[in-house]
Amino acid sequence: MNIEQFRKAGYQAIDRICDYYYALEQSKFTVLPDVEPGYLRPLLPSTAPETGEEFSRIADDYEKFIVPGYTHWQHPSFLAYFPMGFSFEGILGDLYASSVSNPGFNWLASPSCTELESIVLDWASQMLGLSASFLNSSGVGGGCFQNTASEAALVVIIAARSTYKAAFPNTKLEDMRIYTTTQTHSLGLKAGMILGISVRALEVEERDNFALRGKTLRTAIEEDKSNGLHPFILIATVGTTSSGAIDNLAEIKTVVKDYPEIKIHIDAAWAGMALVCPEYREICYLKEINDFADSFSTNFHKWGLTNFDACPLWVRDRKSLVDALDITPPFLRTAQGDAGTVIDYRNWHLGLGRRYRSVKLWFVLRGYGVEGFQKHIRRAIELNQVFVNMVSSSDLLSFVTPPFLSLSVFRISPNVSPSTSTSNHGHSTFPADTLNDINKILFGRISARKDILLTQTILNGKFCIRLAVGSARTQESHIREAYEIVTHEAKLTMEAWEQMRIGA
Amino acid sequence: MNIEQFRKAGYQAIDRICDYYYALEQSKFTVLPDVEPGYLRPLLPSTAPETGEEFSRIADDYEKFIVPGYTHWQHPSFLAYFPMGFSFEGILGDLYASSVSNPGFNWLASPSCTELESIVLDWASQMLGLSASFLNSSGVGGGCFQNTASEAALVVIIAARSTYKAAFPNTKLEDMRIYTTTQTHSLGLKAGMILGISVRALEVEERDNFALRGKTLRTAIEEDKSNGLHPFILIATVGTTSSGAIDNLAEIKTVVKDYPEIKIHIDAAWAGMALVCPEYREICYLKEINDFADSFSTNFHKWGLTNFDACPLWVRDRKSLVDALDITPPFLRTAQGDAGTVIDYRNWHLGLGRRYRSVKLWFVLRGYGVEGFQKHIRRAIELNQVFVNMVSSSDLLSFVTPPFLSLSVFRISPNVSPSTSTSNHGHSTFPADTLNDINKILFGRISARKDILLTQTILNGKFCIRLAVGSARTQESHIREAYEIVTHEAKLTMEAWEQMRIGA
Repeated sequence: MNIEQFRKAGYQAIDRICDYYYALEQSKFTVLPDVEPGYLRPLLPSTAPETGEEFSRIADDYEKFIVPGYTHWQHPSFLAYFPMGFSFEGILGDLYASSVSNPGFNWLASPSCTELESIVLDWASQMLGLSASFLNSSGVGGGCFQNTASEAALVVIIAARSTYKAAFPNTKLEDMRIYTTTQTHSLGLKAGMILGISVRALEVEERDNFALRGKTLRTAIEEDKSNGLHPFILIATVGTTSSGAIDNLAEIKTVVKDYPEIKIHIDAAWAGMALVCPEYREICYLKEINDFADSFSTNFHKWGLTNFDACPLWVRDRKSLVDALDITPPFLRTAQGDAGTVIDYRNWHLGLGRRYRSVKLWFVLRGYGVEGFQKHIRRAIELNQVFVNMVSSSDLLSFVTPPFLSLSVFRISPNVSPSTSTSNHGHSTFPADTLNDINKILFGRISARKDILLTQTILNGKFCIRLAVGSARTQESHIREAYEIVTHEAKLTMEAWEQMRIGA
Repeated sequence: MNIEQFRKAGYQAIDRICDYYYALEQSKFTVLPDVEPGYLRPLLPSTAPETGEEFSRIADDYEKFIVPGYTHWQHPSFLAYFPMGFSFEGILGDLYASSVSNPGFNWLASPSCTELESIVLDWASQMLGLSASFLNSSGVGGGCFQNTASEAALVVIIAARSTYKAAFPNTKLEDMRIYTTTQTHSLGLKAGMILGISVRALEVEERDNFALRGKTLRTAIEEDKSNGLHPFILIATVGTTSSGAIDNLAEIKTVVKDYPEIKIHIDAAWAGMALVCPEYREICYLKEINDFADSFSTNFHKWGLTNFDACPLWVRDRKSLVDALDITPPFLRTAQGDAGTVIDYRNWHLGLGRRYRSVKLWFVLRGYGVEGFQKHIRRAIELNQVFVNMVSSSDLLSFVTPPFLSLSVFRISPNVSPSTSTSNHGHSTFPADTLNDINKILFGRISARKDILLTQTILNGKFCIRLAVGSARTQESHIREAYEIVTHEAKLTMEAWEQMRIGA
């Protein structure tokens, strides 16, 4: 394809993306595609073509075979997992970045890539209210993109392990321990599997809204230490994936003051974006994060309007990363790196090559401004409040844990006893297992629909359903519709259950 | 930005990318930018704007501040590191992928993303001549994208460690060993640092063109085993970054037959793409790879015409990855995953979310076809041969190791004795240190220029210079120009050295 053919195909791609977003706004697609596992293989040849094909044919096949298999994360009724960041500014940033195909592993590999990343992550850090210690301009701390929140956690665990081993050289890897809670994202357990290091998932209680308490942490540390084990990092969460739980950073701060060898990483992959609004900083423990966290990570590619992927990690001590990850073979040496006058970001992450993501975030931050981000966050929280108000007045549905920001976790918990089908408003007396079965049926019914997407979770044994708002295209009407669908399916679920009970 | 504003900004982006490539073809930029460390910060505001800005202003600032700081990897005179893959089909694939902002972590997250990846990596695998064991359609082996070759190696090391620990449960991590050679890319040593596992870099000899020999491997295994150590994986290379060395897979195959507990990963990040041409399959040990390698990785984002990033990893046993990396919290469970009828690619790599890269590779494979890939590879090798012929007839330059495919590693090694400045054609009698000093001066001179970019390396103590061909825009004229520049700088280097010698 020559330059003029690219111009033509590029215009067509832009037009087709516009068509796609008009279609999404008009709900011409359902959220979920109507395809079965294995749908694509029979539709495509089994090998690459021998000779090159016209691009117009390739582009048409994309429309014909690939688009119909998408789960549409930007659909207004996508309320599963967490929202996936999107903005037209983000697409444009990706487009410009892709056009220079740059691996950005050191300063010389493209000075502007490294320098823009360093600047734009300072912008982002300040916008979220992080302290000056986390700024690249501090020369001591700093921010850099990681591939995902999982990699961000992995990187700081590796750095913490390295720091700990330097301080206590005789420590065996087998005796080291990563701390998470039972509610921490699987990134904690996965890091343990990757590194071959044990993970202790600390217990949290429903009465604490699944937040880690200081006392639990202290007891675990003392217990492990007395057994010759070495806890060296805690992955604390502001806004868990499962239920939006916020570990009690005020209490944790008090505890870890007594154990300075234990590093603290804050994973705020989803909720961290709420820090852009001053009114959510206290509930998200911003002051404590700034006071004592060693590192902090949040995903602009979740609630932050930026196309996947855009996951910054900020650390208070960049040397901890470089000490653990720097390796410079002769073919990667540069005069600027040797002189120490530049950041070589390859030493801040796992791989060597790295994608050029700063231009995308730069476009998004400038296109929206701080006000635009605040508006986006507040809007999602307001929309969730619409859902919260409806569930609160429902006889059939109730919350399992208090809604947090734009996330609601709910289930069927009917105000009727299983022995009556009248509208008796007594407390639910269903046995726990029965309630779980009923809610699994409900989730199965909702999942069988293509017009909405929610996700399941389990909170201390209770099967429940998550609704996460945040797609830029979701309107109040979609939230009301989601509530109607859930209520409709819940009623059918209860009817079916009643039939089963009578039949049994 | 609304849809119509995006259309306008999108057209403009396409036009500007076209302008950029016309400018590159006409050499309107030098390869290296004319900027100093820290150039960008004073040019940009220190914080994100409070309110959103017009995109036209943002796009203009991109042209004004960011483009002038690029190292142009697609410049025809970029001959450093390895070429970074590029095609207009690749940009278009990235654009379509970005437009749906999809994290693709399981089948349900977008069926077409998972299914296209599974199909297109089978296409790629077949195009390279890999055996049917590595096909996703085998249901046993398979291919998936990793972020980089470093992550590919890391993932298979983790899987191998896990398999080994399952077979020999009492093995201490401290006693396990990763094998590389002294010429293996830093990805081997970095994996060791990340995992806290020791790495033994096996010696290779200049007389073997820096290839690992079977005897060296067997001696190391026996030595380590007798010391209670546990080698469990060898990272062998087809085409090292430093010098294009190819480990002797025929001999290695014979040795590891006796040690079935040691896994073999083949890193062919750069050279693997040559397998598309039947005439390079023997020299790259394709038969042996197919016979006994447990995993194989190559980068389509290097020599493979695909914009960064596009790094497939193929494994003979997908279960080894999933056993080591699968963790499924309730909020990630799906009916299809539970039924085992689909691939959930998140269990084949380190993170959870993953970029959607298959559409890009699909576009590139279809746009070029197998013939187009072969033409691209052969053209780069022919261009390197032009350089090889010129160096071969030079009095001043010589090769340190035989050129391989599109890579030449050379240095000043003048056919004159240091005691005379006449054109005496005797053998070079410069002491090794002096020759290194001279070549460092030469590389310093070349590096000070902005119109060409080469990289340095060190081969068993010899400082040398690498020239790697492969950018789609490099023509014979650029190679001849590169030779003229190198020769010009080499002459000036020798003159300067002579002056210094006389002065001293």
